[in-house]
Amino acid sequence: MATIKDVAKLAGVSVATVSRVINQSPQTRTETVETVKRAMRKLGYRPNAAARTLVNKKSKAIGVVVADVSDPFFGGLVKHVDNVAFNHGQQLLIGNGYHDAERERQAIELLIENQVGAFIIHSKALDDTTLKMFAEDYPAMVFINRCIPGLEPRCIYLDNYRGAFLAANHLISHGHKNIGCISSNHNIEDSWQRTRGYIDALDASGLSQHATQNLIVKRSPNEKGGEQAMLALLDTQPNITAVCCYNDNMAAGAITALTDNGYKVPEDISVIGFDDSLIAQYLHPKLTTVRYPIEEMAGQAAELAFSLAQHIENHTINGGYKPSLVLRDSVKNLFS
Amino acid sequence: MATIKDVAKLAGVSVATVSRVINQSPQTRTETVETVKRAMRKLGYRPNAAARTLVNKKSKAIGVVVADVSDPFFGGLVKHVDNVAFNHGQQLLIGNGYHDAERERQAIELLIENQVGAFIIHSKALDDTTLKMFAEDYPAMVFINRCIPGLEPRCIYLDNYRGAFLAANHLISHGHKNIGCISSNHNIEDSWQRTRGYIDALDASGLSQHATQNLIVKRSPNEKGGEQAMLALLDTQPNITAVCCYNDNMAAGAITALTDNGYKVPEDISVIGFDDSLIAQYLHPKLTTVRYPIEEMAGQAAELAFSLAQHIENHTINGGYKPSLVLRDSVKNLFS
Repeated sequence: MATIKDVAKLAGVSVATVSRVINQSPQTRTETVETVKRAMRKLGYRPNAAARTLVNKKSKAIGVVVADVSDPFFGGLVKHVDNVAFNHGQQLLIGNGYHDAERERQAIELLIENQVGAFIIHSKALDDTTLKMFAEDYPAMVFINRCIPGLEPRCIYLDNYRGAFLAANHLISHGHKNIGCISSNHNIEDSWQRTRGYIDALDASGLSQHATQNLIVKRSPNEKGGEQAMLALLDTQPNITAVCCYNDNMAAGAITALTDNGYKVPEDISVIGFDDSLIAQYLHPKLTTVRYPIEEMAGQAAELAFSLAQHIENHTINGGYKPSLVLRDSVKNLFS
Repeated sequence: MATIKDVAKLAGVSVATVSRVINQSPQTRTETVETVKRAMRKLGYRPNAAARTLVNKKSKAIGVVVADVSDPFFGGLVKHVDNVAFNHGQQLLIGNGYHDAERERQAIELLIENQVGAFIIHSKALDDTTLKMFAEDYPAMVFINRCIPGLEPRCIYLDNYRGAFLAANHLISHGHKNIGCISSNHNIEDSWQRTRGYIDALDASGLSQHATQNLIVKRSPNEKGGEQAMLALLDTQPNITAVCCYNDNMAAGAITALTDNGYKVPEDISVIGFDDSLIAQYLHPKLTTVRYPIEEMAGQAAELAFSLAQHIENHTINGGYKPSLVLRDSVKNLFS
């Protein structure tokens, strides 16, 4: 295995010069850099990065924790952080937390151990106190899809409650009275807030007598879960004319369950989603849904994290995003 | 900032004992481990992981490079590697290469710098020679969706050519003669192999006169690209009765383009996909497609990488997977 001394010898420079090239010190001439790099390649020399990290203190990476990168929602989040990172000449390390406190903690700690320079954390299972401790130790740590009291300037989040309220209210304003709610069985605030938005919208329109627990069915927040929830509703709630879904994946499953059982969407039953993920416009019918501007939010979170890492104050941050409706073809107007 | 000495003092043990706890040495009593950990928590002490990595030589992580984690195909790959890693008590570091040689190289090098213990590499842009150099330096590096001559025992891959041949042949055996090909514009072997499979299937059935370049349209391998490609085919090839798509995302876009323009699938035009991704069974109609067993392959790649990292010989590896057809509702039999 070649050492730094071998590289210095072959390049005809001092060990200190090789070290400067490895650590990308600006005081090195371009030709010298090229000569040293050529010698490193020729000898198959790889600077020991753990050692280098000790010198540099920060590695050239931004760390991201999401629930599950295989969910397109989180995939989109990660991609947009990566775009910003690329513009800053930085790379990405990604960890999955699966909405589980212990795994979220492990994922954050692995990033800490790898000395990333900035963090974007999507944590739903760890409590505020724990996240505040992390935030205190690591000033360039930003939280996404969560508003932690006392850490507001470092939080980028959506008003989930209002999004669900808008969705249910859209159905009500189109004449629907028996509205089912296909919710997530994950024990996280997104589930509670969205269910609460649905209930309050019904309450506000004097439909609260309809909003019994039987109209709310909780399953896994994916296509399969949406299918199962819709079948359960068809079984026990024959009078529903519409369903509010926790996300677009569940809406996709609900539409499939309806179509498979001979119901037409939206003629027989209307369906509304949440997220406006890519799939929404490729479903049949195209899905009316609530827009979750995750790309924009992820980009802002990344820019904020980089600002914090460079100790640049960012006065323009307003981390609270408002949801809006995207009208497509999956809701029927019962008045027309 | 608390030091290792402070921890040792508070826990009433030696610095060496604290070091053993940090490095998870098996020669430490459970109570001692607990006492030291409590002291570390109390003092907010975090072992400097870069230093620890230098001692341990391997960090507790497996590194994965994919093209783009926001594509559900790669999301699924990453998730199944993560499942295996979790069973081995290891975590994941993920990098995106975007089918670009320089970014693939950077992503691999970042993992090397972070001293991961094992690698799963999905590289399409780097040449065989470069990957062989990496493979030589890092014995626990496994390649997925690629067969590199000389590195076969460390490659897990699918016969893309045969998958596309099967798909086109399925259409031909159902009476289709004018078959369009919606291909990817990424300049990678998957695109060439799948297009070649389509052409050869037509050739083998004496339909080669139909397989003109005009029947093959290349766009980005996502829903939008599928939509654009389908519109282009409708424009120039009014006689087609079926299309072979590069992947299920493009098939979803093609179906939307057809439906939006008043065509019925499969009554007017049949569509066949590739991958059997989650979306396939939630499209309308449900998509007939080629199964790419990426979860199984990702799991096998991860197990192989862990075996190699532990110098365990794995004689059972057969990295070459065969594709198969999944029959659903998007292909019409013209003979019936």
